[in-house]
Amino acid sequence: MRIGQGFDAHRFADPDSGTPLWLAGLEWPGAGPGIEGDSDGDVAAHALIDALLAAAGLGDIGSLFGVGADAHGAGMHGAAMLRETVDVLRGAGFVPVSASVAVIGNRPKIGPRRSEASHALGEAVGCPVSVTATTTDRMGFTGRGEGVAAVASALVERVR
Amino acid sequence: MRIGQGFDAHRFADPDSGTPLWLAGLEWPGAGPGIEGDSDGDVAAHALIDALLAAAGLGDIGSLFGVGADAHGAGMHGAAMLRETVDVLRGAGFVPVSASVAVIGNRPKIGPRRSEASHALGEAVGCPVSVTATTTDRMGFTGRGEGVAAVASALVERVR
Amino acid sequence: MRIGQGFDAHRFADPDSGTPLWLAGLEWPGAGPGIEGDSDGDVAAHALIDALLAAAGLGDIGSLFGVGADAHGAGMHGAAMLRETVDVLRGAGFVPVSASVAVIGNRPKIGPRRSEASHALGEAVGCPVSVTATTTDRMGFTGRGEGVAAVASALVERVR
Repeated sequence: MRIGQGFDAHRFADPDSGTPLWLAGLEWPGAGPGIEGDSDGDVAAHALIDALLAAAGLGDIGSLFGVGADAHGAGMHGAAMLRETVDVLRGAGFVPVSASVAVIGNRPKIGPRRSEASHALGEAVGCPVSVTATTTDRMGFTGRGEGVAAVASALVERVR
Repeated sequence: MRIGQGFDAHRFADPDSGTPLWLAGLEWPGAGPGIEGDSDGDVAAHALIDALLAAAGLGDIGSLFGVGADAHGAGMHGAAMLRETVDVLRGAGFVPVSASVAVIGNRPKIGPRRSEASHALGEAVGCPVSVTATTTDRMGFTGRGEGVAAVASALVERVR
Repeated sequence: MRIGQGFDAHRFADPDSGTPLWLAGLEWPGAGPGIEGDSDGDVAAHALIDALLAAAGLGDIGSLFGVGADAHGAGMHGAAMLRETVDVLRGAGFVPVSASVAVIGNRPKIGPRRSEASHALGEAVGCPVSVTATTTDRMGFTGRGEGVAAVASALVERVR
């Protein structure tokens, strides 16, 4: 059994940019502007990807998907990136056992769609994935609504 | 074995409010104003609750205890909330195996009472619970003394 | 199996101080000023130390190495502190199974030397240690380049 730790933070996009909001594997229409990023800015998925890759000792999201507009991950949704991550893990002899991500930010309000998010991420990863959410009481960059952050951990098992 | 990740942050209360300071299951008399929150504002206990619920796939502190002055958790101390959380886990067939929380903030100074805090939390959870503490070198909202944050992780086991 | 969570953050040193930059067990020449701290300021190693000590229920970096210029850890490099930490764990009957640290900051760019960092830390701890790295999109104290933070988790096993 091996453990991995991931963290990610991204800035909310300009309200005029029309960027859709994707987080924790779901689109959140009506919950305000989306998140900046080479891909869909889904910090929850990205933190989970880092946690899974770290647990297996296979680098991080930057080394797997690249950085910038030409990156391999450019324009990809979080769930698709998670699926590709798990393919890489399986190819190296690891399977995800359990994963969890804590989302830190003012919006979207995760609670009403937590099960749906957990289901979407768990379906992509192929093991139970939990989602918790909290604010920072108007403190710091998440509290001022500048962006959103996520911290994740994962357990993987070596199968060969 | 399943893993859970939790995070919480709360603002320190107004010095004139007379709010007592509760953190990591203990009261800290003489360590300055307490923490704002619907309950006692114990971010260490709250991050642990999120980590435990996440590990068992049972939601988070908001879904279990509610939010706001009418919340089920209003006025509850962290240790009591942890006990109720573990009851919910046991009812769903999970037992806590191990948990750990890192407290991030200027005060109280955890070190001198770390064992006592670890004991109080561990007694509530029913497994070893560790407490570490650090500052952020006067950086960010924790460094400016606006509030305190905590990041926690937990392992639980399915027993039926 | 027991889990531990660690966090650390330190301020970058004054550019005129000539402080060398040490992070994740390596020196980073040419990557700008180093990090303030009683020891070498290696937040990745320090977060891992807290995670390992927490997992074993043996306190934290402050209780083991002290705080301030007279501290036992003053001037020590992160890898040496990790080695001493693991000696303490082994003396208490615990062995590290797996550990992981997420570095949060603008510099140094970890990617090109990730394997080297992972190897240096893993050699010190005696189990696989992963390193991921991310920025916070110019947000918060890490995004403004005031300092660097790290969040770590570890699994340890009781062997006697």
